[in-house]
Amino acid sequence: MPHQELQRRIEASFAQQGLMRVIEARIAEARPGRCTIEAPFRKTLTQQHGFLHAGVLTTLADNACGYAALSLLPPGQEVLTAELKVNFLRPARGVLAIARAEVLKPGRTLTVARAEVWMRSEDGTETLCAAMQATLVPSVTI
Amino acid sequence: MPHQELQRRIEASFAQQGLMRVIEARIAEARPGRCTIEAPFRKTLTQQHGFLHAGVLTTLADNACGYAALSLLPPGQEVLTAELKVNFLRPARGVLAIARAEVLKPGRTLTVARAEVWMRSEDGTETLCAAMQATLVPSVTI
Amino acid sequence: MPHQELQRRIEASFAQQGLMRVIEARIAEARPGRCTIEAPFRKTLTQQHGFLHAGVLTTLADNACGYAALSLLPPGQEVLTAELKVNFLRPARGVLAIARAEVLKPGRTLTVARAEVWMRSEDGTETLCAAMQATLVPSVTI
Amino acid sequence: MPHQELQRRIEASFAQQGLMRVIEARIAEARPGRCTIEAPFRKTLTQQHGFLHAGVLTTLADNACGYAALSLLPPGQEVLTAELKVNFLRPARGVLAIARAEVLKPGRTLTVARAEVWMRSEDGTETLCAAMQATLVPSVTI
Repeated sequence: MPHQELQRRIEASFAQQGLMRVIEARIAEARPGRCTIEAPFRKTLTQQHGFLHAGVLTTLADNACGYAALSLLPPGQEVLTAELKVNFLRPARGVLAIARAEVLKPGRTLTVARAEVWMRSEDGTETLCAAMQATLVPSVTI
Repeated sequence: MPHQELQRRIEASFAQQGLMRVIEARIAEARPGRCTIEAPFRKTLTQQHGFLHAGVLTTLADNACGYAALSLLPPGQEVLTAELKVNFLRPARGVLAIARAEVLKPGRTLTVARAEVWMRSEDGTETLCAAMQATLVPSVTI
Repeated sequence: MPHQELQRRIEASFAQQGLMRVIEARIAEARPGRCTIEAPFRKTLTQQHGFLHAGVLTTLADNACGYAALSLLPPGQEVLTAELKVNFLRPARGVLAIARAEVLKPGRTLTVARAEVWMRSEDGTETLCAAMQATLVPSVTI
Repeated sequence: MPHQELQRRIEASFAQQGLMRVIEARIAEARPGRCTIEAPFRKTLTQQHGFLHAGVLTTLADNACGYAALSLLPPGQEVLTAELKVNFLRPARGVLAIARAEVLKPGRTLTVARAEVWMRSEDGTETLCAAMQATLVPSVTI
């Protein structure tokens, strides 16, 4: 699939996700087998210590895995997350969350992907805050 | 800890979580080793097929696990999620999401909890949509 | 499927697993959606503290999940584990390890199961030592 | 810690693991934050299709994660696996299983590591068969 068409296809799916607007996420990059999604730190999305909520980090990483998987499937398909596992490594403070995903094993039925969520601080340094391993399936499968 | 004090303590922590307001979640029940959190279905919280987003189900289940764990710790502590794993079992359609968590193994350092997320439909029937197993740690630990 | 035929089918698959003989495991029970597998504590199967190795607990739980899943599939199929997650809750000491699995969500493509591994001591008391959540697929799928 | 002392320390712990002799595993490499463990394919360690059993792949990857974590802790400590998650990506056929682990986030209380298990065929090519993400704790912690 040409790169531009891939970008369009992923943007179209992304635009249908209400939750992405709520957390102000955007696709920073999409190429075959990879996807990066970013979202700004917002006070409205925190947990009880004022850090970005684990649920937000998970949402970003999950979506990045999903679109990395989708990028390798034939047009017309969608993917669903069958399961995910995520370790939270450090408190998520900073100005921007960046979820970078990569397909580890593509497959017609099951795709396995990994993602890492980095927090960028005001001075531009990035800190690894979460690591995910997830299994995705075409939406016709479940 | 008396039941009322437990409820107060969890409500106080919950109120500090910006994300809980965004998804309109509320604590439906909290007792030693257990916690139930509910949130209404909202179009703004969907994924690309119009179902409640996996990230929202995860957020609810994660918080329910966290407060189930907190309920067994000495006052003055907070908990963080070290890691979680969640399987998505069915599309999350309905009017209310209900995350029910239970501590499987309490511990001074590590607490292991399980949660299930059920979707209630308009006619009151409930469908199991997600199952989580998570590891929580006191916030002084990480 | 009649109960006896289910038992026979699972025993036949089990007998082909070299590893089951090495750890002296046996199927204690198999009925639709459930399976229990047991193995005696052996010094040869320990980790560095003399407890049963996490890998052995995982193997027992994984197999119990697999046969619980298989019990709900049409004859002639086999299952593979797509992924598993296991928490180790307490040191595995005692005389017998008992892995009890149950299907949480059957499916044509994906089956989700949970297992718990209990250690039985000489006086017959049982202690919960590990908890698993796993995704199984028919062997034609991967 | 000098490299030789690290190697000795890990070998000493490894030698106490009965299960490692059963699966004929050996430490191929150990340096700060990394560990590689190998084991030959054996008919006795298979599942029902004649592939290396998921439990064996998990055992190797778990141990590699454990020693990668141990390599960064002060002498005199041991580690335990708190939890692990592993995806099985391809059937494990070949002559040698190689589990390569790396610490993603070291910590006084929690260490997070990742491992990959590769199968080497007779002609020397390697195939990625499993991917793990695990949480380790010092053995005094649980």
